[in-house]
Amino acid sequence: MTENAAFSQNKVLTIDTMNPNVKKMEYAVRGPIVQRAMQIEKELREGVKKPFTEVIKANIGDAHAMGQQPITFFRQVLALCSYPELLNDNMFPEDAKSRARRILQACGGSSLGAYSASQGIDCVRQDVARYIERRDGGVPCDPDNVYLTTGASNGIVTMLQLLVCGEGASKTGVMISIPQYPLYSAALAELGAVQVNYYLNEEKCWSMDLSELERSLAEARKHCNPKVLCVINPGNPTGQVQSRQCIEDVIRFAAKEHLFLMADEVYQDNVYAEGCQFHSFKKVLFELGPQYSNTVELASFHSTSKCYMGECGFRGGYMEVINMDPEVKAQLTKLVSVRLCAPVPGQALMDLVVNSPQPGEPSYTTFMKERTATLSLLAEKAKLTEEILNTVPGITCNPVQGAMYSFPNISLPQKAIKEAKALGQVPDMFYCMKMLEETGICLVPGSGFGQKDGTYHFRMTILPPTDKLKILLAKVKEFHLKFTQQYS
Amino acid sequence: MTENAAFSQNKVLTIDTMNPNVKKMEYAVRGPIVQRAMQIEKELREGVKKPFTEVIKANIGDAHAMGQQPITFFRQVLALCSYPELLNDNMFPEDAKSRARRILQACGGSSLGAYSASQGIDCVRQDVARYIERRDGGVPCDPDNVYLTTGASNGIVTMLQLLVCGEGASKTGVMISIPQYPLYSAALAELGAVQVNYYLNEEKCWSMDLSELERSLAEARKHCNPKVLCVINPGNPTGQVQSRQCIEDVIRFAAKEHLFLMADEVYQDNVYAEGCQFHSFKKVLFELGPQYSNTVELASFHSTSKCYMGECGFRGGYMEVINMDPEVKAQLTKLVSVRLCAPVPGQALMDLVVNSPQPGEPSYTTFMKERTATLSLLAEKAKLTEEILNTVPGITCNPVQGAMYSFPNISLPQKAIKEAKALGQVPDMFYCMKMLEETGICLVPGSGFGQKDGTYHFRMTILPPTDKLKILLAKVKEFHLKFTQQYS
Repeated sequence: MTENAAFSQNKVLTIDTMNPNVKKMEYAVRGPIVQRAMQIEKELREGVKKPFTEVIKANIGDAHAMGQQPITFFRQVLALCSYPELLNDNMFPEDAKSRARRILQACGGSSLGAYSASQGIDCVRQDVARYIERRDGGVPCDPDNVYLTTGASNGIVTMLQLLVCGEGASKTGVMISIPQYPLYSAALAELGAVQVNYYLNEEKCWSMDLSELERSLAEARKHCNPKVLCVINPGNPTGQVQSRQCIEDVIRFAAKEHLFLMADEVYQDNVYAEGCQFHSFKKVLFELGPQYSNTVELASFHSTSKCYMGECGFRGGYMEVINMDPEVKAQLTKLVSVRLCAPVPGQALMDLVVNSPQPGEPSYTTFMKERTATLSLLAEKAKLTEEILNTVPGITCNPVQGAMYSFPNISLPQKAIKEAKALGQVPDMFYCMKMLEETGICLVPGSGFGQKDGTYHFRMTILPPTDKLKILLAKVKEFHLKFTQQYS
Repeated sequence: MTENAAFSQNKVLTIDTMNPNVKKMEYAVRGPIVQRAMQIEKELREGVKKPFTEVIKANIGDAHAMGQQPITFFRQVLALCSYPELLNDNMFPEDAKSRARRILQACGGSSLGAYSASQGIDCVRQDVARYIERRDGGVPCDPDNVYLTTGASNGIVTMLQLLVCGEGASKTGVMISIPQYPLYSAALAELGAVQVNYYLNEEKCWSMDLSELERSLAEARKHCNPKVLCVINPGNPTGQVQSRQCIEDVIRFAAKEHLFLMADEVYQDNVYAEGCQFHSFKKVLFELGPQYSNTVELASFHSTSKCYMGECGFRGGYMEVINMDPEVKAQLTKLVSVRLCAPVPGQALMDLVVNSPQPGEPSYTTFMKERTATLSLLAEKAKLTEEILNTVPGITCNPVQGAMYSFPNISLPQKAIKEAKALGQVPDMFYCMKMLEETGICLVPGSGFGQKDGTYHFRMTILPPTDKLKILLAKVKEFHLKFTQQYS
């Protein structure tokens, strides 16, 4: 019994009687640091004096909240779809109107307010399929394999839910990278599945090592039934972009070891480093030939929330399933039908992402200008972040090759580690909480994502506007030096 | 092993290795009848000859798909929020603009594309709280108890997820009405909880009987741990409106038997029958005095999908939790944070519903006109449905007091029941499938919602436009007479 249990002993639902799997879930990206940051913001508004005047949040990949502007064309079409009277207005370009008309025609009663088919609006799924075919150099995509989702998170949890079964030693094991995006660990806790860790190689820019995958799998087979291998590429929280060779190795490994592959590819347009390129798991799978492309089961995920659009609030996304057993696919369709459908405005937005303005259309030039400007700015900020962090003694930062995050290694003095432990805190949580209180900067401790024992990190997004990012990085530098000195 | 298992023996994920709880789920509202209806529509488009020229769908509460028009004010504000450039356009009334500005100010980066706080946008939750207070005659509502959700379905599943625990005889039991809305049975199957049935009294217009609740609970306590009582009011699929007395009885019962109450009140504005009135569980709870209002745990649910707005596609909704243990509330907040947030356009729409135009504002007159027209039309169609169905020998239909459905009792001849069973079909599924094939009318068999053994029903929405509804009802009548004759 917890301390509060006496107080609430008459309640039906208490911390002691609730679902224990939910209790086990953790989600650092919106954990205690962020809650404290929100309190501090409130205190600042109420006039409480602090050593800073604003909280700078670099805890979550929320581009618009950090000032990134939406793509004009996307928002025009969404406005037209929301209020079709505007189709008579001259202020909108013709291509925006024709896209809106096409989407509305595919909606029940020509309204975003009707439920869509559970798998998603037909014509949007067709557009997604054509987008995937273009992206993958003509590898065919069947719209029947595409499911529109409520953001990628919802797709990932749904797939895991299908895959998890068994008890004890036959319980499903799911291999996830460490560091990982904590949606994965939280979903596995929720579903009562076994989390199987494989470590990314920090020394080799967070790449995946085949030997580490083998070690992890062999270890897991002693106590559970590992069936799934999850990969995030480009990486969250680690910002790496996997090489084609690495993806090939992973696919061969999954095939040999009879693992279902889940590829989280929501950052597919966020590739900044020279020499790096995004390779979709599906494309590589098909290039490996029919003995792979006809057998390896793959689900890949995309979203409207990242890349150049950053439209998180609309909760749009899709997943494509490859080589899925037809009976299981029918079950998947049933499962999603209970939730009725993904939000229709998010489906419309997903359509615009995969069917953006084409050369010759009135909105093309502006669209390309906006898209390129956003991606160039992100590339600049990725470089800036890496460079400045690497000037700090005690901070080592891999190149931010892609995605929206850096995950630098921080050296913490023994005295600080001791003090944190005395307070019952994880050392990098102690560090980040102190940084928040002293500088107003909100980062997420590496422990929220997982890291090798005895190493410490933080995750920081590269999203704040350049001027704020510079202030942030300068403050991080100053804080780290002071912290190191204080505890040395 | 199923038949296909040999074919798919090399797959990781097969019908035999997938999550068994997902396999158990059923969702009739989008089940085999609806899938067949979609096939038939496709066949019609391809020119296949049928005894009808169109499929009329009365299977799902999807108002806009049935031609109901959205509320102009809501869509204006959504368009303004989607594309804030429109704030400079003169075509929009000032109150729409000021609502849009207020919502945008509450969004990160003034964009619908930013994530909101996990519990929902602050100012929307405040507006929801004030709406609840007005609705409940001043009973106080704390915005901290309000969670914005992805439609009501998502809120209901989330609450059930918190509540479910235990194995064997200590497994959580959840009492649901029979007939029920199959979201409940599906969610319970998914979560591995025990479904505890209590039967509504069809003879007394689908009311809840205390003695039946007691019977059901006593029965359940022999094999599980019943902790939750779910009520849908106004009723789905049964269209009844619970009396104040009945709600009082249910609350006293929950208090006495130590049950957590879940009140699905998404049809709170859909009350048509004279003498009927919507009473919220919360209001009645508070009127019963502090020994109830300080102890009984209640979660109530609302949505943008029903009432006069019918905006299903936006997936907007909220839940209010009363007397929830603070430690559990923190866990609830953590649980919803893993899914990041409810779709922000849906949150904006929920705000407009609870904060609609007020007397004196430019949009008030139009808003009231549209709202009243929609609700009056629904009331007319409710009456029409009941009256026409009751003219058919062998069909008995309770008054459609509220919600959007009638759930008439149908007498099926013994010969038909025998033939259905010989085909391995549930008799009312056999009946509805035959009706679909012969008339193009898509209803949902009562067995999809549960019913007393030996009774048969179908659920039919009252949403089709009046002219189509009349055709539909005439065809149902004709089919039922023919069917009865054929099998007598």
